[in-house]
Amino acid sequence: MIPRIALTPGEPAGIGPDLCVFTARNDFPCEIIVFGDQNLLADRAKQLGVDLDFEPVDFGAPPSAHRANVLKIFSIPLQKNTVLGKPETENVSYILNTIDEAVRACMSGCVDALVTGPIHKGIINAGGIQFTGHTEYIAGITGGDPVMMLTDPSLRVALITTHLPLSDVSGAITSGRIKTVLRTVNQALQLKFGIANPRILVCGLNPHAGEGGYIGREEIDIIEPALSELSKEGLTVQGPLPADTLFTPKYLEQADVIVAMYHDQGLPVLKHMGFGQAVNITLGLPIIRTSVDHGTALDLAGSGRVDTGSLVAAIDAAIEMVENRTAINI
Amino acid sequence: MIPRIALTPGEPAGIGPDLCVFTARNDFPCEIIVFGDQNLLADRAKQLGVDLDFEPVDFGAPPSAHRANVLKIFSIPLQKNTVLGKPETENVSYILNTIDEAVRACMSGCVDALVTGPIHKGIINAGGIQFTGHTEYIAGITGGDPVMMLTDPSLRVALITTHLPLSDVSGAITSGRIKTVLRTVNQALQLKFGIANPRILVCGLNPHAGEGGYIGREEIDIIEPALSELSKEGLTVQGPLPADTLFTPKYLEQADVIVAMYHDQGLPVLKHMGFGQAVNITLGLPIIRTSVDHGTALDLAGSGRVDTGSLVAAIDAAIEMVENRTAINI
Repeated sequence: MIPRIALTPGEPAGIGPDLCVFTARNDFPCEIIVFGDQNLLADRAKQLGVDLDFEPVDFGAPPSAHRANVLKIFSIPLQKNTVLGKPETENVSYILNTIDEAVRACMSGCVDALVTGPIHKGIINAGGIQFTGHTEYIAGITGGDPVMMLTDPSLRVALITTHLPLSDVSGAITSGRIKTVLRTVNQALQLKFGIANPRILVCGLNPHAGEGGYIGREEIDIIEPALSELSKEGLTVQGPLPADTLFTPKYLEQADVIVAMYHDQGLPVLKHMGFGQAVNITLGLPIIRTSVDHGTALDLAGSGRVDTGSLVAAIDAAIEMVENRTAINI
Repeated sequence: MIPRIALTPGEPAGIGPDLCVFTARNDFPCEIIVFGDQNLLADRAKQLGVDLDFEPVDFGAPPSAHRANVLKIFSIPLQKNTVLGKPETENVSYILNTIDEAVRACMSGCVDALVTGPIHKGIINAGGIQFTGHTEYIAGITGGDPVMMLTDPSLRVALITTHLPLSDVSGAITSGRIKTVLRTVNQALQLKFGIANPRILVCGLNPHAGEGGYIGREEIDIIEPALSELSKEGLTVQGPLPADTLFTPKYLEQADVIVAMYHDQGLPVLKHMGFGQAVNITLGLPIIRTSVDHGTALDLAGSGRVDTGSLVAAIDAAIEMVENRTAINI
């Protein structure tokens, strides 16, 4: 079966359309359907000197693999023509429409997975929509308890908390959240990544994992009891371990995934290791969703100086997840 | 001039003595004086099959470079014989004596720098001494506002806050502390590392550096105004920048040091990059002090399976700092 994948270009004034155009120059072993404005993509392709044809989507026909330079499109019109590098609040409803339609297509089974391009949180909020994040917005439509996992070719990092002010992190580290995230990660690695018995290493919250209570007590009071419950359930969990030494060969060799307590504990090292090839995967939703790991890079839109590595890796990850899920369903 | 360096082996039941013994097998372009128990080191050497002679220290004579297998010693007696891997509270006063004497030797000018082996915070506290950290203890003797900087062959990371519970970090990020740390780092890179105009990149506190105030306001309220003051003083400072993308080539190429707001924001990536060769350097003190970046590894004491990389790198860093300081004084 050829996976059918919805791709949203994200913020029209950023590099999202550029990434779609450049990526479309290659063949892929999946169908790719861009949910977005055809004229925007055609203009950007012209600007970038890429020869690109468009085909309307036909959900009735069986999926066909993406051929270079022919892009299938589910057309959603822009509200206002875009100026490179200048996001405008008038197009916020367009951006959200592309996500809404693509998520609905996943929910209804018309497509198998969603790959999202970069959006600009600030402009969406400025447009009057309270918007904490792409992932949270999608979960608002699909339901579910989203878990953010970043991957690169040699490492997976999942997060207990995501886009919170640092001062709110400690209060958000609850036994319930830890158990939800670890069960979700464990199940996803089994069902969508084909790992029978995922080995999960968990960071402490505090420096040196609290050093026996001398630098904070969350490890003793919250994290250890939660991990001990999960071990009893059969999960292969180790921790809480000091984050500063966890990303060294001794540990990395024995981990299928590292769970960090918060954003900047786990992601600097992942993005350092996987520079340009990191993928953001949302687990815990009823749909498969992957995303680029970078922002809109407004200053680079239309410049041709963009790296499609993360988007290609996000498409590849979506294909892998669809294929593993399908294999298990059969 | 040959630098004269004091080396404290740290916790006698851990790998500190092993590291001293193995390191002593090599020549060094500095004098090394171990401040510790000679019998402990002789026993450990025997256990590890290392042929080692001892010489008493003579501060009156000019320093002579370390010759392989001959260790100069400033003898400080253990309180109780050590069992491998079993720290005992009876020896806490010994551990602190070794540090006290070595720091005093630095302060009086008898030695040029201090290199410290790993100690075990828990056992010192269990021994009835309130002990938040090696660095803080040394600063208690010397005075000064210590700043922790970790280095490996390709990166330097300095920290605004160090061994605090995560929930206390936000409250500790003050304009005063940021300015102290950055001025100290700037001056140290000039005077002790020979960098005329250090380029300093500074992380935000919150994910995505607060994303314009949507994920926390410390960047806007505290960090930006402090950096702007420092720029006016002539420091070459950039930030606050999102920590997750700061350790990628685009930024690393233009940084002499990255300043992280807290321990687990900056150290996982540094220890990943510099595994086994990272050094902990204390700036802001009236003495030069470097340290191994790892713990006591109690389970490995006496095993022979230890990596002297960090201790050797700490000695090399101390030599470099002494030589740069000396060059400037002349």
